[in-house]
Amino acid sequence: GQPLLLIAGPCVLQSEELALQIAQGLMQAVEPLPINLVFKASFDKANRTSLDAYRGPGLEEGLRILQSIGEQTGLPTTTDLHEPHQAAAVGQVCDLLQVPAFLARQTDLLTAAAATGKTVNVKKGQFMAPWDMEHVVTKLAGSGCDNILLTERGTFFGYGRLVNDMRALVQMRQLGVPVVFDATHSVQEPGGLGGATGGNREMVEPLACAAAALGVDALFLETHPDPDQSPSDGANMVPLADLPRLLRRITTIREAALHS
Amino acid sequence: GQPLLLIAGPCVLQSEELALQIAQGLMQAVEPLPINLVFKASFDKANRTSLDAYRGPGLEEGLRILQSIGEQTGLPTTTDLHEPHQAAAVGQVCDLLQVPAFLARQTDLLTAAAATGKTVNVKKGQFMAPWDMEHVVTKLAGSGCDNILLTERGTFFGYGRLVNDMRALVQMRQLGVPVVFDATHSVQEPGGLGGATGGNREMVEPLACAAAALGVDALFLETHPDPDQSPSDGANMVPLADLPRLLRRITTIREAALHS
Amino acid sequence: GQPLLLIAGPCVLQSEELALQIAQGLMQAVEPLPINLVFKASFDKANRTSLDAYRGPGLEEGLRILQSIGEQTGLPTTTDLHEPHQAAAVGQVCDLLQVPAFLARQTDLLTAAAATGKTVNVKKGQFMAPWDMEHVVTKLAGSGCDNILLTERGTFFGYGRLVNDMRALVQMRQLGVPVVFDATHSVQEPGGLGGATGGNREMVEPLACAAAALGVDALFLETHPDPDQSPSDGANMVPLADLPRLLRRITTIREAALHS
Amino acid sequence: GQPLLLIAGPCVLQSEELALQIAQGLMQAVEPLPINLVFKASFDKANRTSLDAYRGPGLEEGLRILQSIGEQTGLPTTTDLHEPHQAAAVGQVCDLLQVPAFLARQTDLLTAAAATGKTVNVKKGQFMAPWDMEHVVTKLAGSGCDNILLTERGTFFGYGRLVNDMRALVQMRQLGVPVVFDATHSVQEPGGLGGATGGNREMVEPLACAAAALGVDALFLETHPDPDQSPSDGANMVPLADLPRLLRRITTIREAALHS
Repeated sequence: GQPLLLIAGPCVLQSEELALQIAQGLMQAVEPLPINLVFKASFDKANRTSLDAYRGPGLEEGLRILQSIGEQTGLPTTTDLHEPHQAAAVGQVCDLLQVPAFLARQTDLLTAAAATGKTVNVKKGQFMAPWDMEHVVTKLAGSGCDNILLTERGTFFGYGRLVNDMRALVQMRQLGVPVVFDATHSVQEPGGLGGATGGNREMVEPLACAAAALGVDALFLETHPDPDQSPSDGANMVPLADLPRLLRRITTIREAALHS
Repeated sequence: GQPLLLIAGPCVLQSEELALQIAQGLMQAVEPLPINLVFKASFDKANRTSLDAYRGPGLEEGLRILQSIGEQTGLPTTTDLHEPHQAAAVGQVCDLLQVPAFLARQTDLLTAAAATGKTVNVKKGQFMAPWDMEHVVTKLAGSGCDNILLTERGTFFGYGRLVNDMRALVQMRQLGVPVVFDATHSVQEPGGLGGATGGNREMVEPLACAAAALGVDALFLETHPDPDQSPSDGANMVPLADLPRLLRRITTIREAALHS
Repeated sequence: GQPLLLIAGPCVLQSEELALQIAQGLMQAVEPLPINLVFKASFDKANRTSLDAYRGPGLEEGLRILQSIGEQTGLPTTTDLHEPHQAAAVGQVCDLLQVPAFLARQTDLLTAAAATGKTVNVKKGQFMAPWDMEHVVTKLAGSGCDNILLTERGTFFGYGRLVNDMRALVQMRQLGVPVVFDATHSVQEPGGLGGATGGNREMVEPLACAAAALGVDALFLETHPDPDQSPSDGANMVPLADLPRLLRRITTIREAALHS
Repeated sequence: GQPLLLIAGPCVLQSEELALQIAQGLMQAVEPLPINLVFKASFDKANRTSLDAYRGPGLEEGLRILQSIGEQTGLPTTTDLHEPHQAAAVGQVCDLLQVPAFLARQTDLLTAAAATGKTVNVKKGQFMAPWDMEHVVTKLAGSGCDNILLTERGTFFGYGRLVNDMRALVQMRQLGVPVVFDATHSVQEPGGLGGATGGNREMVEPLACAAAALGVDALFLETHPDPDQSPSDGANMVPLADLPRLLRRITTIREAALHS
């Protein structure tokens, strides 16, 4: 079996110092495990619930930090983009481009991402069937993208709640691409905090274990030394200190699934 | 009671001749009825299921056609925009700017639309609760937009199907803004046609009647002289020739609701 | 157009006096309107959330009260049954037998109801598609039932919430039977009150108006002189005193729909 | 960790010979594994889609077969009941009583099951939240039932489809009872075959693996030597010959989850 790909980091970039601290914590956590690590952080949270919520450092400063993290740690990096014109700049810094779930059907964003020649990871829209992602794969492949990842991050399940249809991991892999399980956003509770999105961190572990039992190719996780201080998605982040135990458990289950 | 606002037109612009024919057909249909008409057509379908589907004439040519239609008919016009940089140009031609449902949470698109000073109509995301639209209203109002419309166009209801929660019309109006019922996209069946979105035209009328009974402020309808020849959304469009009868029925029900 | 059939009453029988008061209040409310009234009350709430919730007077005493109400008012009556052995006794007293939504697929209950020779009203299960009710119609018809009603009372829409897919009224009527809109149970919020089912009375009117605009054959409503004192479903009942205005509005909209 | 409880058998009883063949096949499959086996078969399918579908041998003959299977194999047995009056007879033969999902809220059925003194396994209704099962547990415990199991078998997810919210296994176990994952009914497609319920057998294994990774206490599976010949639920049954490999895999993953 292939090592697990772990796409992890804080949700949004704050300072370079914090980003580096998290990257190094992640490297320590994965060091003894069959895991390949990609560092993820957002330069801009383009769809925050409220106008005055912290959005991040912006494209230029964000990419500078990501490049610096990559150079200091040797880790590949990834970030999410929101408009086609951002793709080229992101593609010069990051190894993996991430297309957000709400934007999974925006053709120009997909073709711009494909044009960078980098690997593109598209999150399945909360409003899409797993098999609808075939069209996303076709759009990307038709635009010259050779390396595609698809991410399950939950499907609409009544107002304020998402559900993971675990069959989606099987069905999206049947499209011929590796699949990612996003354990952080799957436990979001949209609108759950009034003017912000809530979540339930306790469900990250059971859902990640379930995905591991399906032999998922990659796991997406957001983490922070102190999640309750994170400006975004804190309610569903895993504390950095919990990652060694959690990742050991997930890889143990995944290995059992792959070798049985 | 106020006249019904009708936002109608073909889905996507094809030729100016066809757009004019549809606009004139609409004018004839609404002439005897308490209806104010806004002509709607898209210059670009930015999230088509497939890469090679017809997308429209593009921003420049699309706005030229819309301006010409407006000048020839005297009708106000509207179109949907997909990226913030398009807002200023659209705002110079159209009286009403439409933000697509998938993009209802994209802050930069909302603020760019607000900056035009025009009325902004935001479609509720298929993944959003009616009360989540409060944040959209707040973002727009906080960006200087004084005239806001919110549109119900269906909520995710299992793969390949939407449902109209009619309570949404009441709940969104409680946010202090007029509400629109989009009878065309509510009957979409995402992914229902394999490489394209399907739909069920027969349900347009009952759903529009239901919305009328709630005293909805505006109705959104796509129409075509020959829907099965439309390059997009044909399965859920109403034939132009059916509109006089349909609109008479809807306004009759709406008047009964408003005056009882 | 046919008059509207109104199936209404308290949720569960308490005293005969109260039942009579409600029946008489209903008669007054419908007297000036094109409405045929059926008095509804339950003898047993067989699926209360909690073991110690009030369930009702039981089969024997419940049927005695219903018979007495029928004799004193001349109204036809209906009640819901839960086990096949209850059908014969209910059929001797009531003109219309009601099969609860959770039990809509229980074959023996349907055939026992059919065997009474009375009209049978089956509520669509919260877990069923409108077209799945075809099998219910076939089971009833195949058991000799000539008069069938189907009721829309909401479909599961995420934990603790139901939604009315208004298309269901059209689709179930296409099965060749009259359709009922249950405006009371559609606004239930299962589990919404912890150890009891909650609800939202304010949505009864808009949803009933929407159903009226579809020309629904019958309306189901629970009412009480003081809903907050009702032992069951109080949160979604309409106060008896509000019915004259509400029913006038609904019939006005329905007439507009039928004659336009 | 405790051994896995496996509740398995054909869906509905046909002949005693076939039931015995399946019971013996199951015993062979679990023999080398840390699994405790309970033999399950239905004497009556009380909610078949169609009136003329095979329902089973009935209560008396069904219990005779179950008793005989129990005596010949030494296995504990279980079956599902549909009306309160059946409970006593079932309780005299079976070690475990199963309450169907549609009936999970029927108070009299729960109390009758509790009165037998046997263990009671209630399937979560397709229309219920996991936390709503607290009331089921309370009803059973308040009726003297000391041994309760709760089963996840899928939740309504749009017409004709169920989804497993894997969090339900965690949430129901937090009610203080062991939890069962029903891998067969979770892949049902209600109404998917027109006049019958369809299903997708290929998803049994991934979903059962996911449940195993959550350390589920019990697994429910229907099996048949030739599923396509089964009179019920064939589309989602596992062929008997596939069970040794499948169960080995599931127990391997479960052990990894319990010991990591």
